[in-house]
Amino acid sequence: MPEPEDNPPREHRPPAAHRRAHQTARDLERYGSLFAQRTRGMRSSAMRDLMAITARPEVISLAGGLPDTSTFPPESFAAQMTKIAQESAAEALQYGPTDGFAATKAAIGRLMAAEGMAPDPEDIIVTTGGQQAIDLITKTLVDPGDPVICEAPTYPGAVPVFSSYEADTHQVEMDAEGMRVDQLEALMDRLAAAGRRPKFVYSVPSFQNPAGVTLSAERRRRLVELAREREVLLVEDNPYGLLRYEGEPQPTLYQLDGGDYVIYVGTVSKVLSPGIRLGWAVAPPPVMEKIVLGKQATDLCTSTLSQYFAVEYFAEDRWRSYIDSLCEVYGSRRDAMLEALERHFPEQATWTRPSGGLFVWATLPAYIDTSDLLAKALRENVAFVPGAAAYVDGTRGTNSMRLNFSGSNEGQIREGVRRIGNVVGEQVALYETITGEHRLPPDSSPPGTRSGESTVELDPGADQPGERAADILPLRRRREEP
Amino acid sequence: MPEPEDNPPREHRPPAAHRRAHQTARDLERYGSLFAQRTRGMRSSAMRDLMAITARPEVISLAGGLPDTSTFPPESFAAQMTKIAQESAAEALQYGPTDGFAATKAAIGRLMAAEGMAPDPEDIIVTTGGQQAIDLITKTLVDPGDPVICEAPTYPGAVPVFSSYEADTHQVEMDAEGMRVDQLEALMDRLAAAGRRPKFVYSVPSFQNPAGVTLSAERRRRLVELAREREVLLVEDNPYGLLRYEGEPQPTLYQLDGGDYVIYVGTVSKVLSPGIRLGWAVAPPPVMEKIVLGKQATDLCTSTLSQYFAVEYFAEDRWRSYIDSLCEVYGSRRDAMLEALERHFPEQATWTRPSGGLFVWATLPAYIDTSDLLAKALRENVAFVPGAAAYVDGTRGTNSMRLNFSGSNEGQIREGVRRIGNVVGEQVALYETITGEHRLPPDSSPPGTRSGESTVELDPGADQPGERAADILPLRRRREEP
Repeated sequence: MPEPEDNPPREHRPPAAHRRAHQTARDLERYGSLFAQRTRGMRSSAMRDLMAITARPEVISLAGGLPDTSTFPPESFAAQMTKIAQESAAEALQYGPTDGFAATKAAIGRLMAAEGMAPDPEDIIVTTGGQQAIDLITKTLVDPGDPVICEAPTYPGAVPVFSSYEADTHQVEMDAEGMRVDQLEALMDRLAAAGRRPKFVYSVPSFQNPAGVTLSAERRRRLVELAREREVLLVEDNPYGLLRYEGEPQPTLYQLDGGDYVIYVGTVSKVLSPGIRLGWAVAPPPVMEKIVLGKQATDLCTSTLSQYFAVEYFAEDRWRSYIDSLCEVYGSRRDAMLEALERHFPEQATWTRPSGGLFVWATLPAYIDTSDLLAKALRENVAFVPGAAAYVDGTRGTNSMRLNFSGSNEGQIREGVRRIGNVVGEQVALYETITGEHRLPPDSSPPGTRSGESTVELDPGADQPGERAADILPLRRRREEP
Repeated sequence: MPEPEDNPPREHRPPAAHRRAHQTARDLERYGSLFAQRTRGMRSSAMRDLMAITARPEVISLAGGLPDTSTFPPESFAAQMTKIAQESAAEALQYGPTDGFAATKAAIGRLMAAEGMAPDPEDIIVTTGGQQAIDLITKTLVDPGDPVICEAPTYPGAVPVFSSYEADTHQVEMDAEGMRVDQLEALMDRLAAAGRRPKFVYSVPSFQNPAGVTLSAERRRRLVELAREREVLLVEDNPYGLLRYEGEPQPTLYQLDGGDYVIYVGTVSKVLSPGIRLGWAVAPPPVMEKIVLGKQATDLCTSTLSQYFAVEYFAEDRWRSYIDSLCEVYGSRRDAMLEALERHFPEQATWTRPSGGLFVWATLPAYIDTSDLLAKALRENVAFVPGAAAYVDGTRGTNSMRLNFSGSNEGQIREGVRRIGNVVGEQVALYETITGEHRLPPDSSPPGTRSGESTVELDPGADQPGERAADILPLRRRREEP
C-alpha cells in the first residue's frame, strides 16, 4: 500500500500513469517480468496521486503527519549552520560512521533521558529517520511469511515496510487504553499452537499514529512481562512521547524492560525537523550488529550534515523550551480540532481525544467509504488520510479517517473540519433519504463516543478474543441498527 | 560481507564482539533464532573493526573512498546555508516529496548534461546517496536466487546489497578496457541455456571502483546492443565520470541507450559532498514507479536540507570550476601514487593506471593474502582495502588491494605506499627465503604490467570464456611459475 504517511507537500504533476504517452502494454510486459515478488505487493493507489493535489496552496491538508517547521526560529538555524561551516565544514561534508557519530548518540541520549531512559551509546544506531529504523529492523528479522504483530489501526508508514518483506502481519485491536494486550496474548497462543512465533510486536504506545490513543501504564507492564515470558521482541516506536498536552507521562516500554526485549525507535522529526531525516534505533548488541550491517548496505551512513546540525541544536537547552512551545501550539490546535469536530461532524460520527501527538482518528457510519469521501473532500479543497491505509489488508478501516492537527493553524483546522463535515453530512443525508432511515436523536448516542470525555471506547462490543478474524476486527464502533 | 567502501572515519572503540561482557551464548541463541535468512548472509568481518583503527590520526588511510572535502570553500558553505535559513528555513526543515524536489532534479539534469545526457525529470528519483539507489533497484528487481551480473572485481559496496537480497551474483572479468563483454555474452548464453535470465547487469563503466579501468567505447556500444537484443537491464553506476584527469570522455551507457534498458545511478558524493547523502537513479517509468514505492517504505524522502543545499550549490556555475580544481588535485595525487608504487612496490607487483576516479588496483604474488597483509600494514599505521571485499564469494582477489588516492595528500600517499611496499617486500623476501625461489630479474616482467604505460592488461591469459568458474576468475595476473 503506497503510504500517505508523512508524505509531504508533493509538487503538483500529472498522475504517474499518465506521464508517458509511449508507456504501452508492451513496456509493462517487458519490465513486469523482471520485478521481484516483494514488488508485486507494492501497490500504487489513488492516494499517491491525490497527495499531489494537496500540495496546491488552496487545499487545507489534514492528511500529512507534518510538524509545523515554521515555528523553528530561522535565525537559530542560520547561526548553527554558520558555526558548522566555520568550524567543521570539511567534516560536515564528509562520510560518517555507519552507526552514527558519538556526539549524535550523546544528543539522542539527552532526548531519551527526558523520557526516563538511559541507553548504552553502543546500543544506538543513527538512522535516516525513524522510517529507516523500522525498515532495518524488519529487514534484519523478517523472512517471507514470518508473523509480525501490530496494532489495528497501525502507523500507515509501517504497512508498506511489512509488506515489502512479505511478512504475515496480524493486527491486534485497540481501545481507549491502547493495544488490547489480552487479545495479543490470545493471538500469540494461537500462533504458538500452530508452531509459529512472531518475529516482533510493533507498537506506538504513546499518542498512537493514527488512533491518537495511549497505552495505559498497566498494559505497558503486562506487555513487557509478556515479551519476557515468551521471549518475543517488542518494537517501540515513540516519535511523539515528548508532545504531551495534558496528563502524566507514562514509562516507555524500553524503560520498563531495560532493553533486553524492547527495540526502541526514535526520531527528531517531530521535535526538531523531519526534513533532516534523523532517527535512531536502540537494540540489544546481537541485533544491533545486524542492523548496522543492513544500514551499511542500504545507505552507508546517515547524513553527516544532519547529524552536525542536530548535535549543535541539542548541545544547548533551548530544545526543551522549543518542545514546550510546540506543546502549547499543538495543544491549542488539538482543542480547535476537537471543537470543530463537535460542531461540524454529524452525530453518527465518533472520534478519539488524544492527550498528545499529532492525530485524531474519526469513525463514520459503516456505509461511508472514506476513500470515496476523500475524492469528494478534495473537490472542497480539504484532505485527510482514509483509514484503510492503516490496515494491512486495505479493506478494513474503510469508514475511518486520520486527521492531523499539527500541520495547519487553528483557522485552517476549523475550516478544514467544517468542509469535511459538510461532505460527510451530505453522505449521511443521502443515505438516510435512500434508506428511509432516520437519525438517532442526540441523546441516544452511546456514552463516551463524543468529545467532552477524556477517552473514547473504540470498540466496546469486541471484548472477546475469538477466531483469527476477531484479532483483526476493525476499530470502528459497530453501527447501531435503528 | 561488511563493507569497508566509503566507510568513513569511524570513531575508535572496542570491537563489537567485546562491547558487552554480558553478551553470552545464551543471548546469541535467544536472538539468533529470530534473524531473517538474508541476515545470516551478512557477515561481520575484521574489516569493520579495523576501519575503526584507521580513524586514528597517525594512520594513513588509503582504504576509504573519500573525496577531499577540505577542498570545499567553507565560506561558500556558510553563505549558502545562511541564504537557505533566511529564505526558506521552514521548507528546508520539512518533509519533501518521496521522489525529490523538482529543483533537485533540475540540478541533477545540469550535472548529467555535463556528460551528454538529458533525462526526463519524471524518470529521476533523488536518493539517500548512490548506495540507496543500488539498494532500491535491487529491492525492486531481485528475488532470492535470481541471477545478477557484475564486474570482477566489483564495487565493494554492491556486494552486501546483492547478498542481502540473496541474489545469485555472477562476476565477469575485466581487462584494461573494462568488462569483457564477450564473456558477459557467453555467461548469458549459459544462463539462458539453463532457462535463467539475469535481472540486471551492474557496471561502473568509468574509472571503475575498485579496478580503476574504463570500459572502451566499442565495448560500451556492444554492451548496450546486447542489452537490447536480450532485453536485459543494465545498471550503470557513474560516480566518477566527471573526474577525468587525461584522455577523452566516453559516452555513458545511458546516453547510448536513451534510457530504455539502462538504469542510471549518480551521486554528488564525489563532486560536492558525500556527507549530505545525495544521489539519484534514472529509470524507465514502470521501474521508477516501483523504486519510488520502495523508497517511501525505506526512508520516506531524501533529506530536504541536503536537497536545498545542493540546489543552491548547483544553481551557479561555480561547481564546474570546483570539479576542475578537484581534477587537478586528484590528478596530481594519482601521479604521486603511481610514482610511489613504481618506487616502493616489489617488481612482482602489478597495478592499474586509472585515467580518472579515485582508485588504483594493485595485485601481488598469489602467495600473499592481503587480508593478512592489512593486519601487518595497520601496525605500520597504513590501511588499504583487501581485494576480497570486491568479490561476492570473498575468496578471490585475496592477493589484490584497492588503494585510494583522493583522500590523502601527496606526502601521505608517498609515505603510505612506502609503508605498504615495505610490508609487501618483507613478505616477498620471507617467501623467497623459505621456498628458495629467486626474484625474476626486472626485464623478465611481462609487458604492460608496470607503470609507464597508459593501461594494464589485467589478465591477458584468460581470453577464453569457459565453464562457469572461468567467468568469475579473479582479476589478478597468474603468477609465473619459476
